[in-house]
Amino acid sequence: MRKLPFTREKLDEIAAKWPTPFHIYDEKAMRDNARRLRKAFAWNKGFREYFAVKAAPNPHLMKVLKDFDFGSDCSSMAELVLAEKVGNVGESIMFTSNDTPAEEFRKAWELGAIINLDDITHWDFLLDACLPGRDAAGQLAGRVMCCRYNPGPLKGGNAIIGKPEEAKYGFTREQLFACYEKMKAAGVKRFGLHTMVASNELDPEYIIDTAKMLFSLAREIHEKTGIDFEFVNIGGGIGIPYRPEQKAMDFEYVSAGIQRAYDELVTGGGMKPLRLYMECGRCITGPYGYLVAKVRHVKNTYRLYAGLDACMSNLMRPALYGAYHEIVVPGKEDSTETSVYDVTGSLCENNDKFAIQRVLPVLERGDFVVICDAGAHGHAMGFQYNGKLRSAELLLGPDGSVREIRRAETLDDYFATLDFGAL
Amino acid sequence: MRKLPFTREKLDEIAAKWPTPFHIYDEKAMRDNARRLRKAFAWNKGFREYFAVKAAPNPHLMKVLKDFDFGSDCSSMAELVLAEKVGNVGESIMFTSNDTPAEEFRKAWELGAIINLDDITHWDFLLDACLPGRDAAGQLAGRVMCCRYNPGPLKGGNAIIGKPEEAKYGFTREQLFACYEKMKAAGVKRFGLHTMVASNELDPEYIIDTAKMLFSLAREIHEKTGIDFEFVNIGGGIGIPYRPEQKAMDFEYVSAGIQRAYDELVTGGGMKPLRLYMECGRCITGPYGYLVAKVRHVKNTYRLYAGLDACMSNLMRPALYGAYHEIVVPGKEDSTETSVYDVTGSLCENNDKFAIQRVLPVLERGDFVVICDAGAHGHAMGFQYNGKLRSAELLLGPDGSVREIRRAETLDDYFATLDFGAL
Repeated sequence: MRKLPFTREKLDEIAAKWPTPFHIYDEKAMRDNARRLRKAFAWNKGFREYFAVKAAPNPHLMKVLKDFDFGSDCSSMAELVLAEKVGNVGESIMFTSNDTPAEEFRKAWELGAIINLDDITHWDFLLDACLPGRDAAGQLAGRVMCCRYNPGPLKGGNAIIGKPEEAKYGFTREQLFACYEKMKAAGVKRFGLHTMVASNELDPEYIIDTAKMLFSLAREIHEKTGIDFEFVNIGGGIGIPYRPEQKAMDFEYVSAGIQRAYDELVTGGGMKPLRLYMECGRCITGPYGYLVAKVRHVKNTYRLYAGLDACMSNLMRPALYGAYHEIVVPGKEDSTETSVYDVTGSLCENNDKFAIQRVLPVLERGDFVVICDAGAHGHAMGFQYNGKLRSAELLLGPDGSVREIRRAETLDDYFATLDFGAL
Repeated sequence: MRKLPFTREKLDEIAAKWPTPFHIYDEKAMRDNARRLRKAFAWNKGFREYFAVKAAPNPHLMKVLKDFDFGSDCSSMAELVLAEKVGNVGESIMFTSNDTPAEEFRKAWELGAIINLDDITHWDFLLDACLPGRDAAGQLAGRVMCCRYNPGPLKGGNAIIGKPEEAKYGFTREQLFACYEKMKAAGVKRFGLHTMVASNELDPEYIIDTAKMLFSLAREIHEKTGIDFEFVNIGGGIGIPYRPEQKAMDFEYVSAGIQRAYDELVTGGGMKPLRLYMECGRCITGPYGYLVAKVRHVKNTYRLYAGLDACMSNLMRPALYGAYHEIVVPGKEDSTETSVYDVTGSLCENNDKFAIQRVLPVLERGDFVVICDAGAHGHAMGFQYNGKLRSAELLLGPDGSVREIRRAETLDDYFATLDFGAL
């Protein structure tokens, strides 16, 4: 049974001000985790985590992470603006996008972001967008340019992200060499190398292997083209233990493995020092966010149903992927009376279920139900299908105070793009 | 190859005013289809289609359908308000909800909607919400009350909606009898009976069997409880032929089959006349909506990719369900030069693909790409994940004129629930 950072009584107090459902984030635990990640990789001078904004695009959370020098991994205009709002500009932004529109390249360029190209054709597209008169002022010399490598069949793939050779992202090996040559010829002097081949991965060896792959490749590109890399970005994709039998990724273990590879392939290979970058999202905020709901109805037909006041608009993962999320019933943690429930939302889709056939304490109308590990790809993925509104986000401070970091949507928000006057 | 209601030249004209991507609906074809549905069921006095608002919650589309006396099938507060805005009030609303909050029952009650209960416990919950002093004024006598039947293992189930006995919706048989008795005892005099056991079903026999099941059940309840039903609502779930080899549901065939069952079980069974209600969404707007995008990038790595300026935020079905949608390239319909593409969006998820390994005319940057059958569960299901914004909706009138029926979202919409001042 998961230990919550709040009691039933505390929830009563919070819900008196912010009615359920809401997301609440545990700032202290998020800080502890961020600190631990940084510490684990302290051996690497310049190590940096670029938080994948997509996972939890809330500027108040991003600001907490900025205290640990976390940059922002952005892949859309809205995410670039969020980074800017929290003061993450310049090389504190890694712009890792795909199928990128010109205006997003321009925005990233203006902000001085590290631009991570997804395709070889994007180099000319970027120049057309950002330096239409080409590089008269020698601007490229100060810029860091990065390319995203897709290892294709050379890397086995990951359960969620699939086989790299079927993924839309990144360059082939041949394209990588060609693009770095082109960039060098155009006057670029600062380089990075990136890949992202994991999603919700819990095997540390997979992450270590990814770093090894990039170190070797950086060395090979260095040897063939003469360019020096400032950093390699091993991407994100570090998973979290959604299920009770799973184990969290051991940052210290991963770091030690990567350090051994670094010593062998980078230092031992005669390369200049490389900064190690990551762009994790899930393992940074995921375990520290909770979706808090109340039981609205208990229904007994062919199964027993606990209907909540939250629905898949608040957390899509169980409905989308059949994903497992732990459920805790505050105040009934020690209950010995249990039943088997399908825990449902009110959206008019039968897959709107937070849990299927789950053993839980006997539930009554009004009980709090806390859905764990909702801090990443939770609120962020919510839709308004069936006219459902997205809920508020709250931050539980280290001192136990609670503040709203995103208000709940209203019907006016839902109708904002409609002109009823024209009816 | 699907025949589009607009040419490449017409799209150039439209896109000059509303940049891609956008959804566009063909009003004429939608009207023709609505007219045909009504005509097919004209044998049933009082037949009515309640459009499932969820499929395309745009009041301008709902208003077109209202010309054919289509009511509104609503299952949330937002959908009730939309119905009200287009003037569908009273028994022009079927409120078919589940896990329903008290305020939605109250709103439906105030609007005079037909209330379709999902569970036996909702009867007392409804009374508590809407008639807290109970029925002093005899209001219940004028109200139509309906219950949703879940046949459980008695009905085989449908590929998308799953097995009824695993579905969260509706009453068991025993509960149905009990609830109608309770309602009768409380003073209700007008009754309906509902089920919904299909989703995207293309087999007409499944729909006919559903009607048979309800006719028999209505008769059985009538015989045991003495109540007369005014209507049976066979639900929606009529599919559309997304794939070229599929066939549209033949309304006339379905209607004839239902009429035979009606003659045998209702008229022949000595029951009073019943109105037949349906609550279709997909087959009403689905084939008449198109997502229009442009090719932004063509990418050649392990596969050939056509990256569009639309993404899964505009149409989730391919990414969510692996659903097939026909793709037409206006101006290149007759092209003999083809290639095999993964047609992608720019969202940072590898499943953001509108088509996988699809043979299409050779594509270039700037080509229009039209994704068919996007008129239901298209714009409606869009999310803002990864900071993506939802696009405009346009209506192509019978005279070829085009008007905006929903504006595109802006960054301000995306940030509306955030308080940057508090950062």
